[in-house]
Amino acid sequence: MIACLSSNLPNLHSTPTAPGQTTSEPDSKPQAQKLKSSPQLNRWSRARAVRSGRKLDRFGHRSPQSSVNFQVRDRDGVDLEPERISGGEDNVEAMEGKSIYMVSDGTGWTAEHSVNAALGQFEHCLVDRNCAVNTHLFSGIDDVEQLMVILKQAAKEGAMLVYTLADPSMAESAKKACELWGILSTDVLGPITEAIASHIGVSPSGLPRGAPGRNFPLGEEYFRRIEAIEFTIKQDDGALPQNLHKADIILSGVSRTGKTPLSIYLAQKGYKVANVPIVMGVELPTSLFQVDPEKVFGLTINPLVLQSIRKARARSLGFRDEIRSNYSEMDYVREELEFAGRIFAQNPVWPVIEVTGKAIEETAAVVLRLYHDRKHKCSMPRISKRY
Amino acid sequence: MIACLSSNLPNLHSTPTAPGQTTSEPDSKPQAQKLKSSPQLNRWSRARAVRSGRKLDRFGHRSPQSSVNFQVRDRDGVDLEPERISGGEDNVEAMEGKSIYMVSDGTGWTAEHSVNAALGQFEHCLVDRNCAVNTHLFSGIDDVEQLMVILKQAAKEGAMLVYTLADPSMAESAKKACELWGILSTDVLGPITEAIASHIGVSPSGLPRGAPGRNFPLGEEYFRRIEAIEFTIKQDDGALPQNLHKADIILSGVSRTGKTPLSIYLAQKGYKVANVPIVMGVELPTSLFQVDPEKVFGLTINPLVLQSIRKARARSLGFRDEIRSNYSEMDYVREELEFAGRIFAQNPVWPVIEVTGKAIEETAAVVLRLYHDRKHKCSMPRISKRY
Repeated sequence: MIACLSSNLPNLHSTPTAPGQTTSEPDSKPQAQKLKSSPQLNRWSRARAVRSGRKLDRFGHRSPQSSVNFQVRDRDGVDLEPERISGGEDNVEAMEGKSIYMVSDGTGWTAEHSVNAALGQFEHCLVDRNCAVNTHLFSGIDDVEQLMVILKQAAKEGAMLVYTLADPSMAESAKKACELWGILSTDVLGPITEAIASHIGVSPSGLPRGAPGRNFPLGEEYFRRIEAIEFTIKQDDGALPQNLHKADIILSGVSRTGKTPLSIYLAQKGYKVANVPIVMGVELPTSLFQVDPEKVFGLTINPLVLQSIRKARARSLGFRDEIRSNYSEMDYVREELEFAGRIFAQNPVWPVIEVTGKAIEETAAVVLRLYHDRKHKCSMPRISKRY
Repeated sequence: MIACLSSNLPNLHSTPTAPGQTTSEPDSKPQAQKLKSSPQLNRWSRARAVRSGRKLDRFGHRSPQSSVNFQVRDRDGVDLEPERISGGEDNVEAMEGKSIYMVSDGTGWTAEHSVNAALGQFEHCLVDRNCAVNTHLFSGIDDVEQLMVILKQAAKEGAMLVYTLADPSMAESAKKACELWGILSTDVLGPITEAIASHIGVSPSGLPRGAPGRNFPLGEEYFRRIEAIEFTIKQDDGALPQNLHKADIILSGVSRTGKTPLSIYLAQKGYKVANVPIVMGVELPTSLFQVDPEKVFGLTINPLVLQSIRKARARSLGFRDEIRSNYSEMDYVREELEFAGRIFAQNPVWPVIEVTGKAIEETAAVVLRLYHDRKHKCSMPRISKRY
């Protein structure tokens, strides 16, 4: 876990020097440092939360080596006595977990996205708590001095580095420093950029996102995407059924099948989405049956999983038992899913997607494969774009 | 540009054979194929739209070499007579653009995200129309036969391949086939997964996203993210000011500074966001000045750019001139921005972010850097997570 880096950046040269040489010594100014828990859909912490059966605090840990003072908790958020972590390095390492630094001269979202995808391959370990990983994203790093301060800290911590540096000289400095300081590193943007360059026979600009030369004019697609997001917000939860014909995609399912987050995810990709809740005993808008059925998608889910989601939902909404007690009651959940199933059966053109155990982006991939498949009448669904 | 692939998948072996050997011959069944225009924020097509000053159609083109029949347009959507594209290969190549195939045994979003980021390095070329690129995303490809059909088509087309194949045998097959068939390829997931494996000393599962073993339990983070999205939708456009204290981030600015899409982008990352529009002559909710000012962010934009956005918006909303004519009138735009500027000046703790020429994800990166910087009181803003 890293500390805040010194506010007095040492006057470094672009050629890397040994970590020890840095004038930035966080050790000299320990400060309390609380790690923000992941704001992202995080399968691993979710899994831990479920196992521990209670809310997690994700606090850093102080280690003899670490340069800062952290509040000390174990992974289940249990307070630890200092002696419990004053053991050897292995013990500390086991508690601290491994660090991955992500550095970008742009937004850093590509590095973050790639690391998340790769970490998905280690779920079995992360979930079983044999290992823990801390990621630290540094974006907008367009200055080699900042870069060196970060890499020095990475070297001290034994962190690995994942970088997306559009500026070739920055990428080269990162590579050199990592070699010199023995930092395991991966260049996420470089290889694919080089491949595309040789494929289309054009040299990359080397300009990071947000650089003056990268400012983009506002065109059709910009407005289209914003319009999709605004449309989707207005259509949430069955609102304005008279507009269903304007939607690209319509999602239908019982409460807590993930219609809203799925709608928003698809809207971000430029699709106008409307979602129509199915509630037992409540009639669906007639317009739902008047639109092109090829754009309607039914969502279904395992009753046990739905019940657990609804129980959590009921708690978060503070339902008192006497009110809507049936909402998360098993018989009601089953009946409502059967009610939805009958509606789906009456509309055989609607694909019915099983969302149990699927992340929002997984369900989105299924929906969009079907959507484009139907548009293009392809046997091998694919999404094509023109740049 | 590719056609739909044959619905009769040839019975291939996992060891690649020459493209010619495929029994799937799209040539034998030509079919009309319309390319869906990019559903994504797409700087390049936006730029082209702005240059051409009219709506773009993105259609494929028939080339003597290509295996399918496309409707024929040039990049501005102008219909072309067949003789206009019956020239030599260069001419056709220049018109067709280069293809990038993206293949994934998961959702494919990582490949898509990486390709988009890399293409940002070729904006100068794409914008100037010296080259054009067509991307084709094939997700959920968990079968080597499908994979080979796609790679054969890529070879025929002279496309390059970008793949994220968690299954090592699939990745190996892709690599071999690309070597054999001379397809330029980049493995996006492999290198970073290997690096993490050696860093944390654990072998990757090799399970693609959505594979049975990859189903995740529903935990705290899952509900937190969904709650953030639902909260953000409810708080859009100044709704429920009494809830501002519950927001993690509050965005404030005049109409069309991108508050809504930015709010949604941040909500997707798990932040509860509220946005409060500033309208000249309309009083802001008192609660905005009672909340922690460190979580309020002002958005500002160049008046000329704002005017052009508002004009487009007014058109899309069908404002008649006599109604809200001042909405996109320059004096009004300037005055309203000055009005907002005075409010920002009265609240010096609020950072004011210039959104002119920034994509939503760029502004989001700036907001989150400041947000985490303030949380952690760091000199080097960074976002840390624990897995």
